[in-house]
Amino acid sequence: MFPTYDVIVVGAGHAGCEAAIAAANLGAKVLMATMNLQTIAQMSCNPAMGGVGKGQIVREIDALGGYSGIITDETMVQFRLLNRSKGPAMWSPRAQSDRMAFALNWREKLEAHENVDFWQEMVTGVIVKDGRIEGIHTSLGLEIPAKSVVLTNGTFLNGTIHIGEKQFGGGRAGERASTGLTAQLTELGFEAGRMKTGTPARLDGRSLHWDRMELQPGDENPGRFSYTNTPPLVDQMPCHITYTSPAVHDTLREGFDRSPMFNGRIRGIGPRYCPSIEDKIDRFAGRDRHQLFVEPEGRNTCEIYVNGFSSSLPEDVQYKALRKIVGFEDAKMFRPGYAIEYDFFQPTQLQATLETHLVSGLYFAGQINGTTGYEEAACQGLMAGMNAALKVQERDAFVLKRSDAYIGVLIDDLINKGTEEPYRMFTSRAEYRILLRQDDADLRLSPLAAELGVRNMDARMERVEAKKEAVEAIRYEMTHRSVTPDQMNGWLTKVGTAELNQGVKMMSLLGRHEVSLLGLGEAVPEFQAFLDQHDAETINLAEVTMKYEGYIEREKAAVAKVNRLEGIKLGSAFDYETLNTLSKEARQKLNKLKPRTIGQASRISGVSPADVSVLLVHLGR
Amino acid sequence: MFPTYDVIVVGAGHAGCEAAIAAANLGAKVLMATMNLQTIAQMSCNPAMGGVGKGQIVREIDALGGYSGIITDETMVQFRLLNRSKGPAMWSPRAQSDRMAFALNWREKLEAHENVDFWQEMVTGVIVKDGRIEGIHTSLGLEIPAKSVVLTNGTFLNGTIHIGEKQFGGGRAGERASTGLTAQLTELGFEAGRMKTGTPARLDGRSLHWDRMELQPGDENPGRFSYTNTPPLVDQMPCHITYTSPAVHDTLREGFDRSPMFNGRIRGIGPRYCPSIEDKIDRFAGRDRHQLFVEPEGRNTCEIYVNGFSSSLPEDVQYKALRKIVGFEDAKMFRPGYAIEYDFFQPTQLQATLETHLVSGLYFAGQINGTTGYEEAACQGLMAGMNAALKVQERDAFVLKRSDAYIGVLIDDLINKGTEEPYRMFTSRAEYRILLRQDDADLRLSPLAAELGVRNMDARMERVEAKKEAVEAIRYEMTHRSVTPDQMNGWLTKVGTAELNQGVKMMSLLGRHEVSLLGLGEAVPEFQAFLDQHDAETINLAEVTMKYEGYIEREKAAVAKVNRLEGIKLGSAFDYETLNTLSKEARQKLNKLKPRTIGQASRISGVSPADVSVLLVHLGR
Repeated sequence: MFPTYDVIVVGAGHAGCEAAIAAANLGAKVLMATMNLQTIAQMSCNPAMGGVGKGQIVREIDALGGYSGIITDETMVQFRLLNRSKGPAMWSPRAQSDRMAFALNWREKLEAHENVDFWQEMVTGVIVKDGRIEGIHTSLGLEIPAKSVVLTNGTFLNGTIHIGEKQFGGGRAGERASTGLTAQLTELGFEAGRMKTGTPARLDGRSLHWDRMELQPGDENPGRFSYTNTPPLVDQMPCHITYTSPAVHDTLREGFDRSPMFNGRIRGIGPRYCPSIEDKIDRFAGRDRHQLFVEPEGRNTCEIYVNGFSSSLPEDVQYKALRKIVGFEDAKMFRPGYAIEYDFFQPTQLQATLETHLVSGLYFAGQINGTTGYEEAACQGLMAGMNAALKVQERDAFVLKRSDAYIGVLIDDLINKGTEEPYRMFTSRAEYRILLRQDDADLRLSPLAAELGVRNMDARMERVEAKKEAVEAIRYEMTHRSVTPDQMNGWLTKVGTAELNQGVKMMSLLGRHEVSLLGLGEAVPEFQAFLDQHDAETINLAEVTMKYEGYIEREKAAVAKVNRLEGIKLGSAFDYETLNTLSKEARQKLNKLKPRTIGQASRISGVSPADVSVLLVHLGR
Repeated sequence: MFPTYDVIVVGAGHAGCEAAIAAANLGAKVLMATMNLQTIAQMSCNPAMGGVGKGQIVREIDALGGYSGIITDETMVQFRLLNRSKGPAMWSPRAQSDRMAFALNWREKLEAHENVDFWQEMVTGVIVKDGRIEGIHTSLGLEIPAKSVVLTNGTFLNGTIHIGEKQFGGGRAGERASTGLTAQLTELGFEAGRMKTGTPARLDGRSLHWDRMELQPGDENPGRFSYTNTPPLVDQMPCHITYTSPAVHDTLREGFDRSPMFNGRIRGIGPRYCPSIEDKIDRFAGRDRHQLFVEPEGRNTCEIYVNGFSSSLPEDVQYKALRKIVGFEDAKMFRPGYAIEYDFFQPTQLQATLETHLVSGLYFAGQINGTTGYEEAACQGLMAGMNAALKVQERDAFVLKRSDAYIGVLIDDLINKGTEEPYRMFTSRAEYRILLRQDDADLRLSPLAAELGVRNMDARMERVEAKKEAVEAIRYEMTHRSVTPDQMNGWLTKVGTAELNQGVKMMSLLGRHEVSLLGLGEAVPEFQAFLDQHDAETINLAEVTMKYEGYIEREKAAVAKVNRLEGIKLGSAFDYETLNTLSKEARQKLNKLKPRTIGQASRISGVSPADVSVLLVHLGR
């Protein structure tokens, strides 16, 4: 009934969609297998993409030819660049999307790809022979053959939904759980665990008092995620802000004895940085209010997402507490918040390609690896999909280093350290933040994707080349154009910085905190005329590159030093037990995690600098 | 947590949506409770509305202020008026809709109504006290109070999906079944049964050879369902036609021993007039081919519905057979067809308002009453929703007679005869077909809805009045304008009918088969100028009214006679056992079905003309 697919992707959330299209864009024949083709690419929690650390990932996905950025741009209702008051390493784009439009758009993009086929059914197992993947089993008893399989099951594996004292099986609200797969994988030797996440109540926007809340409009000049020419955002929708209060907290506390979080019914570990409201008032008992973002679910619906109010307290407690919040006095609920427990697999069982150590050709991506967040899931899908295709084509793996991308940081963290709680990205996880900015992810990554032959990189590469040239042109202008005290001092005084005593090159002024390229344009009309030839994104990139040149060069030097170790490969077949000068812990960990490089080995907890030296000596370095 | 709602509607399919909005439009406060708010108004089988007998129902729904017609018009991709070669009683509109757009549009319309609230959860029971409804129970253990409840559970009640030898619980493909309600209703004394329906495989349109199939375009001048001013259809999409063959039938037969239909695993009775392909080749063994309509699921998807190929044979057999069909040689499946068994309640347990005899304020509508089809479900929802609202408001019930509407025929059939198989509408079920035409449902029904105070009837009533006046004006013109042989004979000869010998009124010509209003306009330019003042729909209505005046008057006379019996009310509290001159069977049936009128009593099987006489005598007539 089925051909042998190059790649079968199981699941159709953010990870599954990116995996399918990434493999397809490398020429692989892909089957997307999902329980319900009507629910592809659901934003099952908040209808937003990006945010601090996460926005950078979406830009990286886009730079590598992924679709999350494009689809967000095409369906967004609000855009904000967060952390604009901080340094450019911290600038993080975030967008609200129309939830239904986002899902429909993904389905259209997938259908438009001739390499992607679809099959609607529950996948109940994988076919493995001699340690190699050979396909999947389905609930109808079908066997679908494939050279590789990417599992992106999200919260569906034995999903259990908790609301107060009630619990029932389900993969998302109103949807069935997926069963069978965990048991089989465990039998194959995989180590499974249990995690937990949650989502807040959805409210009826018609019942809210909008005028009692604070308005949170989008950016005046909204940006985009994609480096392609996605259409600009028009007709932005505002969000609103309101707050909990001591009265709200008191009401919530009344339900604590019925909370599945506090009475031990939930054993899975929840996301520390995306806690439920009951967690927040329990852990931060001193705080008398928490901020809530009141977000629309789309342009044509009154459904409202209450960001910050995730809860698995009994629905009556949620309801009573919600109604004590300013603006929510007459709120009607569409559905209560809930917690969901689901199976995950400790990601230390994966290689840097997201292929499992145990089964050749089997990849895991997304929440199944213990992560949380659409962006974290999507980028894993992208990398797993690309690597599955590359392996089938007998080509070299595609691995990003920690200095290449947040995606590299994320995967390196997962496979070397594993995770005891849902892993989410933060800028603080990256040691080379100034190199991993959102403004130049295309310059960093698009050439890598283009070289791999990812389809549709031409437009991105043209823009990359044009941006590079433009940045060079601006730099040339800055280092060659002189300005005089007469020209500058009025403006310099106005912005509050020291006057010039003599003529200087413009570049020398850019180091000052108060000075920007557009500021210089204000002072020097001819320079403004020069700037007018370039777009805002390019001018920004040029400015950041020049202003932070010192930092950038310093980080690059640090990277070069560390990457010497990254360049030294370790064979995956090597038995570290034979190297008895290694510590016992190092031998065990190295045999389990099978690092690809000395650099990766050095980041495994339990592998000491002395152990690294032993490895280097062993390799004759 | 909840106010006491006037009406709770359980389910959000075609019946549930119409019920909710109908009650809301009569001013009732409504809660729509459904397992998944993302799947409101799914076209779970083919993406089409209308057809023979069914198109008339959609027009009637619209005339009564329902929304199925408007939403179909706003989302359709193709329109055809079927049976155009037959008499106007048989003309039946049918439209293909964009499935996703249809569902989204319904949700938007429901959300736009301030009287409709939403709750996402499985409803597990009803609250009944002293024979009166008081609300619903949910899976979380909530009690939501209400003065009336309309159950529209469709195929979800203990739904079991069959594909070959496999079976699993589910309400629709990829969705959970609903449990609990049947058991409780049975305990309350309701008689439950089991029915079956099915759906064909969905195919990947990208894999079909369209050029090998016949093209089936939409009408050149596509009509609409709604009597309001819905936008005209532009950019119609074609359907395609292909056929099974002896080779296809042979392949299907290979799977008969694994068919749940033939080996007795399916006990529910299926729709005789919408049989599975295995049924068709089994029952019509002499036919060597069956026609299949290959229909798009929407504008922006490649998903294809194979109308006529419903099947619960094993998926490999479906696949093998599909690939032997012309155009499907390389077909890829999205999902196989399946059969579904579900609980229904014999509709003889209902009053003409669709309220149950057993529980005051509890209404059933749609497939739960043993019907099949979106249109049949929608119109029951409309009537149940209206009556639930009216009862809460202590107003008279709203019941349509068999001579008023197909809706009247449908409900009268259901409650008096019950049904042993999924009931669908046919024009042959109506005894007054010429009165129940699709062209004047607004004239028949909109005044009734307007008088009830249904919201938003103004536009429809303005058009009704304008149409009436225009028809009268045209009739006046026809009965007063004379034409001469000189004027007419050339044209009469051309269209093949006898010449005139002397001047006549135009009306006298309209009786001829070959003569139409537009034809007369062709012959008489001044008359064409007169016609140009009216729209095509009005001209058509005037022509039908005049051309078929004799038939119409004859049927009206028959109706008047029968309706004398309809006008004689029977008290629902009366105990027929006390009337021992009635036959025993009549006493039992009358006590069980509690007919509202002598007319209804006369249509109950087992109630003889002699029994009717006894009743009339008893009532002193």
